[in-house]
Amino acid sequence: MMIKKLVTFEDLGFVQWGVLNEAEDGVYGAIALEEAFFTPLPETMLEFIRQGNDGLLALADALEQNEKTGAVKAKPLDTIRIMAPIPHMERNIFCIGKNYTEHIAEFDKTAMPKPPKYPVIFTKATSSVIGPDDLIDPHTNVTSQVDYEGELAVIIGKEGSDITVGEAMDHVYGFTILNDVTARDLQANHVQWFHGKSLDTFCPIGPYILLRDAAPDTFDIVTKVNNEVRQDGSTGEFIFTIPELIHTISQGTTLFPGDIIATGTPSGVGVGFNPPRFLHSGDTVEITIPAIGTLKNKVK
Amino acid sequence: MMIKKLVTFEDLGFVQWGVLNEAEDGVYGAIALEEAFFTPLPETMLEFIRQGNDGLLALADALEQNEKTGAVKAKPLDTIRIMAPIPHMERNIFCIGKNYTEHIAEFDKTAMPKPPKYPVIFTKATSSVIGPDDLIDPHTNVTSQVDYEGELAVIIGKEGSDITVGEAMDHVYGFTILNDVTARDLQANHVQWFHGKSLDTFCPIGPYILLRDAAPDTFDIVTKVNNEVRQDGSTGEFIFTIPELIHTISQGTTLFPGDIIATGTPSGVGVGFNPPRFLHSGDTVEITIPAIGTLKNKVK
Repeated sequence: MMIKKLVTFEDLGFVQWGVLNEAEDGVYGAIALEEAFFTPLPETMLEFIRQGNDGLLALADALEQNEKTGAVKAKPLDTIRIMAPIPHMERNIFCIGKNYTEHIAEFDKTAMPKPPKYPVIFTKATSSVIGPDDLIDPHTNVTSQVDYEGELAVIIGKEGSDITVGEAMDHVYGFTILNDVTARDLQANHVQWFHGKSLDTFCPIGPYILLRDAAPDTFDIVTKVNNEVRQDGSTGEFIFTIPELIHTISQGTTLFPGDIIATGTPSGVGVGFNPPRFLHSGDTVEITIPAIGTLKNKVK
Repeated sequence: MMIKKLVTFEDLGFVQWGVLNEAEDGVYGAIALEEAFFTPLPETMLEFIRQGNDGLLALADALEQNEKTGAVKAKPLDTIRIMAPIPHMERNIFCIGKNYTEHIAEFDKTAMPKPPKYPVIFTKATSSVIGPDDLIDPHTNVTSQVDYEGELAVIIGKEGSDITVGEAMDHVYGFTILNDVTARDLQANHVQWFHGKSLDTFCPIGPYILLRDAAPDTFDIVTKVNNEVRQDGSTGEFIFTIPELIHTISQGTTLFPGDIIATGTPSGVGVGFNPPRFLHSGDTVEITIPAIGTLKNKVK
């Protein structure tokens, strides 16, 4: 089978990573594959990403042996808990502020937005990361304007700085989905966006890492709140392409395997509505990128 | 002896941490203390900080035994390489943007600055951290406006969120010095400050962690470039006090041991001069906080 989607999961209280089966209803865990075929596979997804192609080749070898012997059965997805691909982020989350023209229009409240000359680059605290189905804390004691932002996230696989546009895709390991949850009032009050975007639970990521070689050229992205479509965009609308973003961010700043680049959000965020439609306790946010999957989180 | 200053250092190619002797001309390494007195001490400064008071008590016990036996000699400081206190930062660096009124005036080019109602909170990529005497890369291919910002940095010792002003100092482990090096042109171009403050080598930290209980109420802070005084301030001028900053940052965001809060810079940065006085190859920046020490870095 072709290796297409990787996943970090908890099973019987133990966190490990694995690869989706072809039917995408089950996962072959790295621990079981290692035990069955003596293929050395690292303990965590981050270590596996750091191994790059060597890791993928070892995994492919184990899966090939498993096709012959059937020794390892896929664990059904409904029996495990899927987590953020890199659950305890040590690496940076680089976020792009304004990368879809229509989103700039709704945010700046103008029909004729000026596209930025340079990408707006900010970050979220790594302590804000949660996984699929984890609850978003609305932090009602400090904010009354919690908003969603569905985004395609790029996962870096190869270290580098001053990366050219032409080389940029070589540094991409794969893609996942990220909800750049934002407290709009804190974002405004503190001038810099970091604080309002870094509250605990404000960075759901997942469910899978789609490998670069299995990815389409552009991704559709749809965000639903309580089953109602709010955002419906395509990365084909990007102002700055993924290679351009990698080039710009890496100018003077070394990117490392496991770094994540959230590529910006299309129009349709809550603050863009009149009156604004912020998230409240009990709401469910689902971000779907068909090539990857759906990232679903409920507000506590 | 009283435990006052902790230090991370490299000796014979091996990175470890230790405590300064009373004369402050040598360091007792944790490895030697552990071997001599069978006191369990962790491998890294971050792990030691996480142990909180238990770690400090174990260290005090080893030092007391050493006073009696003299089994462990202090390594002279000039024979070791001092590093950033937490050399491979995994934790967040919370930075405060405008915390000295005179700095706001020079930055906003106005004689009558309006003090901010809320602290400006941003961050630097952890990959930008370097230690004392490490070289600052001027990245001349991407910026021509590299500036210094001498700052007192607070090191968090105890996990917590929604910390009250009254409880805040209980969460402080100690203090060190941080140079919030900034590419002013990138800071402006990319709107959000993160990118221009996160270039590789743009976050010198050190040389020591002064423990909270050994700290004065206010700190003087002087920055010299090539031996000329540029910044001369006191944390007594803060717009937001350290307990207020900890209270605000921790609203909805959990602070963890090893997190660093850079408390803002006094007036006298290069961009405040007319014409501006940016850093160039060969320049030396020295930030002195007398109670802590001097953080010195040369521009490559």
